[in-house]
Amino acid sequence: MRVGVLTGGGDCPGLNAVIRAVVRKGVQDHQYEFTGFRDGWRGPLTGAAVPLDIPAVRGILPRGGTVLGSSRTNPFKERDGVRRIRENLAALGVDALIAIGGEDTLGVAARLWEQHGIPCVGVPKTIDNDLAATDYTFGFDTAVNIATEAIDRLHTTAESHMRVLVVEVMGRHAGWIALHSGLAGGANVILIPERRFDLDEVCGWVTSRFRASYAPIVVVAEGAMPVDGDLVLKDASAGLDSFGHVRLSGVGEWLAKEIERRTGKESRTTVLGHIQRGGTPSAFDRWLATRFGLHAIAAVREGEFGRMVALRGTEIVRVPLAEATACLKTVPAERYEEVRVLFG
Amino acid sequence: MRVGVLTGGGDCPGLNAVIRAVVRKGVQDHQYEFTGFRDGWRGPLTGAAVPLDIPAVRGILPRGGTVLGSSRTNPFKERDGVRRIRENLAALGVDALIAIGGEDTLGVAARLWEQHGIPCVGVPKTIDNDLAATDYTFGFDTAVNIATEAIDRLHTTAESHMRVLVVEVMGRHAGWIALHSGLAGGANVILIPERRFDLDEVCGWVTSRFRASYAPIVVVAEGAMPVDGDLVLKDASAGLDSFGHVRLSGVGEWLAKEIERRTGKESRTTVLGHIQRGGTPSAFDRWLATRFGLHAIAAVREGEFGRMVALRGTEIVRVPLAEATACLKTVPAERYEEVRVLFG
Amino acid sequence: MRVGVLTGGGDCPGLNAVIRAVVRKGVQDHQYEFTGFRDGWRGPLTGAAVPLDIPAVRGILPRGGTVLGSSRTNPFKERDGVRRIRENLAALGVDALIAIGGEDTLGVAARLWEQHGIPCVGVPKTIDNDLAATDYTFGFDTAVNIATEAIDRLHTTAESHMRVLVVEVMGRHAGWIALHSGLAGGANVILIPERRFDLDEVCGWVTSRFRASYAPIVVVAEGAMPVDGDLVLKDASAGLDSFGHVRLSGVGEWLAKEIERRTGKESRTTVLGHIQRGGTPSAFDRWLATRFGLHAIAAVREGEFGRMVALRGTEIVRVPLAEATACLKTVPAERYEEVRVLFG
Amino acid sequence: MRVGVLTGGGDCPGLNAVIRAVVRKGVQDHQYEFTGFRDGWRGPLTGAAVPLDIPAVRGILPRGGTVLGSSRTNPFKERDGVRRIRENLAALGVDALIAIGGEDTLGVAARLWEQHGIPCVGVPKTIDNDLAATDYTFGFDTAVNIATEAIDRLHTTAESHMRVLVVEVMGRHAGWIALHSGLAGGANVILIPERRFDLDEVCGWVTSRFRASYAPIVVVAEGAMPVDGDLVLKDASAGLDSFGHVRLSGVGEWLAKEIERRTGKESRTTVLGHIQRGGTPSAFDRWLATRFGLHAIAAVREGEFGRMVALRGTEIVRVPLAEATACLKTVPAERYEEVRVLFG
Repeated sequence: MRVGVLTGGGDCPGLNAVIRAVVRKGVQDHQYEFTGFRDGWRGPLTGAAVPLDIPAVRGILPRGGTVLGSSRTNPFKERDGVRRIRENLAALGVDALIAIGGEDTLGVAARLWEQHGIPCVGVPKTIDNDLAATDYTFGFDTAVNIATEAIDRLHTTAESHMRVLVVEVMGRHAGWIALHSGLAGGANVILIPERRFDLDEVCGWVTSRFRASYAPIVVVAEGAMPVDGDLVLKDASAGLDSFGHVRLSGVGEWLAKEIERRTGKESRTTVLGHIQRGGTPSAFDRWLATRFGLHAIAAVREGEFGRMVALRGTEIVRVPLAEATACLKTVPAERYEEVRVLFG
Repeated sequence: MRVGVLTGGGDCPGLNAVIRAVVRKGVQDHQYEFTGFRDGWRGPLTGAAVPLDIPAVRGILPRGGTVLGSSRTNPFKERDGVRRIRENLAALGVDALIAIGGEDTLGVAARLWEQHGIPCVGVPKTIDNDLAATDYTFGFDTAVNIATEAIDRLHTTAESHMRVLVVEVMGRHAGWIALHSGLAGGANVILIPERRFDLDEVCGWVTSRFRASYAPIVVVAEGAMPVDGDLVLKDASAGLDSFGHVRLSGVGEWLAKEIERRTGKESRTTVLGHIQRGGTPSAFDRWLATRFGLHAIAAVREGEFGRMVALRGTEIVRVPLAEATACLKTVPAERYEEVRVLFG
Repeated sequence: MRVGVLTGGGDCPGLNAVIRAVVRKGVQDHQYEFTGFRDGWRGPLTGAAVPLDIPAVRGILPRGGTVLGSSRTNPFKERDGVRRIRENLAALGVDALIAIGGEDTLGVAARLWEQHGIPCVGVPKTIDNDLAATDYTFGFDTAVNIATEAIDRLHTTAESHMRVLVVEVMGRHAGWIALHSGLAGGANVILIPERRFDLDEVCGWVTSRFRASYAPIVVVAEGAMPVDGDLVLKDASAGLDSFGHVRLSGVGEWLAKEIERRTGKESRTTVLGHIQRGGTPSAFDRWLATRFGLHAIAAVREGEFGRMVALRGTEIVRVPLAEATACLKTVPAERYEEVRVLFG
Repeated sequence: MRVGVLTGGGDCPGLNAVIRAVVRKGVQDHQYEFTGFRDGWRGPLTGAAVPLDIPAVRGILPRGGTVLGSSRTNPFKERDGVRRIRENLAALGVDALIAIGGEDTLGVAARLWEQHGIPCVGVPKTIDNDLAATDYTFGFDTAVNIATEAIDRLHTTAESHMRVLVVEVMGRHAGWIALHSGLAGGANVILIPERRFDLDEVCGWVTSRFRASYAPIVVVAEGAMPVDGDLVLKDASAGLDSFGHVRLSGVGEWLAKEIERRTGKESRTTVLGHIQRGGTPSAFDRWLATRFGLHAIAAVREGEFGRMVALRGTEIVRVPLAEATACLKTVPAERYEEVRVLFG
């Protein structure tokens, strides 16, 4: 049995931990052999591959990034994509594929299995935590830790200078990073894409915080929007990069300027950007990524293709890939309401 | 409505986050007033109390420890304990109690409600993660992060000097910290109290690791025991301290000596000790502790006494206090088996 | 003897450590009394002051920010500034002043002593490390650590996606943070204000790095400029804020766009911003700030006014305030040359 | 020109940073070739060597440990040691040696050059910071940071439970780590080997701290001793391991027991041990180690053998190896006196 492994989409701490667990368990328990495909689906498409054995995965557990590289290549958008993948798998003797990625990468895996019978198992990955069917994805806890540490640091500057500090965190469609890091960092306002914000209300919280002789921290997800009309941001034209990361969106900067204009309080922005998605994974993410890897091999072993491993409580379960990629997991209204008492 | 709050048992990052959330929500949403009892159950027993309002909880979210102090006082072991508590609550006008603590602290709360009708709500706390009825307790993630960072650091020394490094972590009866930090830190052997270890097998893993030209890290919970007879540790007579922490137990040191004697490989021990239970909580623990606090107030509001807030997946639920303290949550055999492939 | 203490200028980790050391030593060794002036020179100017005693400085050593607040008020730009200060000092019974701050704050202290005989001792503070006459200022090591951790994280994303990552760090006139964090983080290009950069050369380093199959990190100080003409940055009109921090200057973003345009390699920017100047100080900065505080009291005790404490090697010395604020300490050409071999 | 490189003695964060800088500069500026000797002086003695080129040093800057391995082998204690080294250097075509290590490793280098004309340049390394002739050695700042973070964490537990916490840090003969981390961590007592401590005085500080309603942290270097007679520690017989690290010495544990016995206050010990010498180096240590490496190549280039690079203020200078290893740099009495006002 030879298993192919690939990592697709944006960077995410824990990818290497999955690869290591997959190879360790596959080789030691089942004598599988492994082929690492380069740069996401580009690997199977072009045949770019490296051998993966136990020495190749030594020491990679704590390292961010992915030793296999990544891309956002979609074989369904390439001429003869599926045929070329099939030929390359055959040429390399690959019997099954483990695809580690987000919505897009796993969507490809779902179609390859369902429509073309190519045996795929999925491992969910997104720092945004917006994949349905799993309680958490690895990478998220690391991103929240990094954002929380940044908020901790900004508190002292806000207090010393009696300023408003706006922190823009990742999250174009889902506000999980903003919600968790804002809660953990003791932010005074948290703004998420799921709930349009009222600038007057935001300024009210800011002002009430100053009245209590404290300086406010506003955490805003990059995809948050005001209630009154869409924000036309200066860099919006730049659109998405080839990994789907939005370019500096500007909601944070726009917000700081508006708050300063309306409240008269000096306001500053910090855009955390890519430091949220690189570097060594947190202990939680290493644990989750490792367990995902071990269970992905179990699914291969049992021939359960077209499925994705997922976390439910403290158990790893398997769910249909199609279900997992059908819709985005956003912050429910009641979860946001739960913490509003902490604003202001 | 006046609510009393107390924190009992060993130190645990996140206690202050609970206190803050309780007070913020109680005051802002329900105009409750609060009394902070000093040093666990000693507070209600002796009437030692401080006022708790919003200014009193400003800035405490990221701080370890507890602003209320702690103790292991058990009112059921004191003369007239229940009567004195009842009188003090009446004198201070306290209508309900929120007890934040582990098995012992919550066990008292359960009896006070069930046998004496004193209205108590529980918030579970233990860095050991061994409380039944909740997926996780706050403090655990912080402890695992600290232990994992230590293991990360020890890897390089093990490799540079081709030594065995034994890391002893907390966990007298449950091996959760050892399991999670060992997994996250890439340990080569993980030993837990739930499963007696075979020294020959341990030495086999150590030797096989060296054969692959790598140096092993052994993570051992303080309560782990060898298969052949109980370990009589040199400090065992010292017993427990007044907070139930075991004194330097010596299993780590004993293990290093035995491994060195049997394999001929130089072996060293690090006992992490109290640094695992102090200092600023991780983002996960601040998030969990804050949500526990918010939901404890909701339980008080709804008059649901004799219950404890608990995490199930990503939801906060309520469970009977009696159920929660009935048995210890230990590492199930299959969870330990799951990761054994990573040993050696 | 009653000593006044004030902190001026931008936020900087270690300010509280100085305040604590000053008060601990002054009270315990010499029975001095202390007045804490609010918000830099605004305090002596308006009489806004708080008592400072040992309980007031408990627990502040590890905290960022300043318990006294800060501002950039310059009494020489206020009507009757010196007279008002003199009156307020007299009214409060303050016999000497310890001013903790950067070039501007200490420049005021120098003039107050030299031209008006008001007894001042200076403690140098700037995260930029650009104050002459001292080897280091506290706050700098913390800023370098934060920037280095960010660069560590960005490496993995650069590698995984084969992108250029540009990191903009603080430093309008001096490139110390860029130089030290770039060196420590293994950056492939470091650009500083002291040396205009040649975009062709930068692109050459970037390209050579990719040729070796690695992705480059470019660290750029916010004040760095290209050789061919000054950069007109989009926010330049915004100018300085009231603490002299430049607003998002845009050199990082500009550079990423130019590199992408010229090399065809996807490029991204991270602007670290205010997280470099907040939060808990590093061990080095706490040590330096504490020693500065202890020695400032010694200077007061010995009546050596008009002087500033400074670090020379491992010794704390005293230098004339006038000398310390006469010129900016920039990165010498040979220090920059020393590390150019590591570029590319 | 072919240059040999070796690392000797105990583990120390920054060794890899030196190796990388040496190779990068040697290859790129001077087209040198490099031989990496395995395990300290054992390498030249036995001929165990690996090629060192730029790919071999990629990515090692932030990693603790040493890619060359280490040992405490002393060729002057081996039969025909010098002759065998000379032969191996000749056989491998090695023209000069860069030895990175502490007192012992550099002492060998000094003798090899002075008595046998083997061209050696030294790079000082010790986490203890006890090497004369340099302001700091790399590894020290990392150790101090780790110890300080541990002390920060222990403060909250001490306060919550009103206990004495004793922290034992490294330092058999020199108290630099204890002094700096104790100062940075806000310890209430700091005990160093250079100054015998009076247990009554220690208990006095402890008691006075409790009187002020705070709980004390005592930082003790492993080599600290009481005034009245030498401590006979239970593991003293174990002596030194083959890297010269003392085994768990027990002064911390002894001290906690004595303090508890005399003051009646519950006391606990944490022995930080090997986590102080492993893992990623701090930004300061990476900067220092890199500059040491660059300057060591300059010394080789200029034929200045028998010398060691050293830090003086912010400059890297060269000093005779013999001078550097002649005596230990201990904490001067006045430096210890400087901070005693912060005790209690």
